[in-house]
Amino acid sequence: MIDDIRAAAKRIAGHVVRTPLLESDALNAAAGRRVLVKAECLQKTGSFKARGGWSAVSNLTDDQLAKGVIAFSSGNHAQGVARAARAHECPAVILMPRDAPQAKIDGTRALGAEVILFDRANDDRDALGAKLASDRGLTLIKPFDNLDVIAGQGTVGLEIAAQAAELGVTEGQVLVCCGGGGLTSGVALALEADAPAMRVHPVEPAGFDDVTRSLAHGTHQRNAALAGSICDAIVTPTPGDLTFPHLKRLCGPGIVVTDAEAQQAMAAAFTHLSLVTEPGGAVALAAALFHPNDLTHDTIIVTISGGNVDASLFAETITAYV
Amino acid sequence: MIDDIRAAAKRIAGHVVRTPLLESDALNAAAGRRVLVKAECLQKTGSFKARGGWSAVSNLTDDQLAKGVIAFSSGNHAQGVARAARAHECPAVILMPRDAPQAKIDGTRALGAEVILFDRANDDRDALGAKLASDRGLTLIKPFDNLDVIAGQGTVGLEIAAQAAELGVTEGQVLVCCGGGGLTSGVALALEADAPAMRVHPVEPAGFDDVTRSLAHGTHQRNAALAGSICDAIVTPTPGDLTFPHLKRLCGPGIVVTDAEAQQAMAAAFTHLSLVTEPGGAVALAAALFHPNDLTHDTIIVTISGGNVDASLFAETITAYV
Repeated sequence: MIDDIRAAAKRIAGHVVRTPLLESDALNAAAGRRVLVKAECLQKTGSFKARGGWSAVSNLTDDQLAKGVIAFSSGNHAQGVARAARAHECPAVILMPRDAPQAKIDGTRALGAEVILFDRANDDRDALGAKLASDRGLTLIKPFDNLDVIAGQGTVGLEIAAQAAELGVTEGQVLVCCGGGGLTSGVALALEADAPAMRVHPVEPAGFDDVTRSLAHGTHQRNAALAGSICDAIVTPTPGDLTFPHLKRLCGPGIVVTDAEAQQAMAAAFTHLSLVTEPGGAVALAAALFHPNDLTHDTIIVTISGGNVDASLFAETITAYV
Repeated sequence: MIDDIRAAAKRIAGHVVRTPLLESDALNAAAGRRVLVKAECLQKTGSFKARGGWSAVSNLTDDQLAKGVIAFSSGNHAQGVARAARAHECPAVILMPRDAPQAKIDGTRALGAEVILFDRANDDRDALGAKLASDRGLTLIKPFDNLDVIAGQGTVGLEIAAQAAELGVTEGQVLVCCGGGGLTSGVALALEADAPAMRVHPVEPAGFDDVTRSLAHGTHQRNAALAGSICDAIVTPTPGDLTFPHLKRLCGPGIVVTDAEAQQAMAAAFTHLSLVTEPGGAVALAAALFHPNDLTHDTIIVTISGGNVDASLFAETITAYV
């Protein structure tokens, strides 16, 4: 897998941002330890998904590119795939849940994709997607159960290893915002090669802690609900088939934070880092700030995985929590 | 001066952030041209002032460091000096206007400085500072009329030249948020050496366009008021004595934006860049977005000079303008 990640890094170079690893004295003081923040909210399209999207689309055949791609996503994977598809002159169809943040729906449409909305609780997204794909000959790019996507997200891990080493940091805990596990497993695979003394912990919202429970049980666990957290970006039913073996071998235990903790972390990122974060993108920072019992190291690396949040929710959050 | 800037770059290396030069497809589309954004809101203490503060404090004698420093500032220079002073175990006294954003007052106190508040309209800040300095033997670090400060801010220009060149950009207009002209003149001096085909334009808020008018007249002009813009960070009475000769020789014409345009730019940075910006830090982006008649190039480089804004103002801004 590490060869796939390094190959993905070459394909995406110059097309995505090498995001900074940020640090704030005040944030360190609030956390009671050193917190290094990999700011993927500064990535193209506002989340790390621009990496996986570009990695996957850039590895398609000419025939696949001509026919087009399809993806389903609450928004960040949608934008990552749409942006890569447009740059490759490849048609893109995106299935998005009707309750996705308007900012993500707008952003995906602005990138030239055909957006089809579905009902998260009642529609069968997979069946809908399969029919569209077969009718039009589209290539499905899954949000995490896709080797090229995992490899693309893994480039975050290559950068973390290099940027932390520049600061003299070669060990510690790496907290990763986790939905289906594409970013988490990609980062863990990259760190296994380039920073083997770092340990990855997935972080999830309460009620949607399928990865944390699956790691504890050793087998796939499912969430009881399919919606109901403000952390829309990382609400997924169960770990991916491709990602879970990597998660089991390399990651854990998971950390579970509340929606309110995610919002407090958004407020902290606003105040101390001048970063706009979305709830699901702030859960790892929330773990670093509010779950000291899960932390064993003086230095913690956290991913902020995205910043695509509606203005109304962001305004409410900083008004309530700053 | 370029030697002073390169020397400052060596002193501050590892102590401040080499901030990214960001770009967003959607922002380019909104501007109708390519906009490269030097994101100094991601700098330590939330603004470029961390550079000038470190540059100046790190060049003091041991005796000066032992006695301490004094600065007056609406907040960003305050935090830059306070942070550098603390790191050098040097006492810091900061005179801040009573109407400075609470976030900046809190931030400065959190960095260990002694904060003394004054009334911007009625108190004589300079006399107050001079008395404190002489009573305690403090070294005054002026916010822009200080060679080491200008050199420190100039490191932004060195980075812009290098980062733009990596993107193949070696000419164009560079729009800089301008108060007393420390950042503007520093950037212009650095670009004169490293990217001589780039031209710097100061950007100011309406009613506080002393630099723009001074450049047009060729002599120091003063603003009629001392307060009254939300762009607190760049409300200054007149160009600096040290900065104006550089501004005259290298920069202009200036561009003047309204407070509402600054807020629209803050909203755009929120949506397209996941950045928190303060009003005064967003005026250059406002010029790139809303003043096409002042722009002559297909590629514009803008500084976002700071992100220290109260949550209430930021929430109001994105609620009204996103």
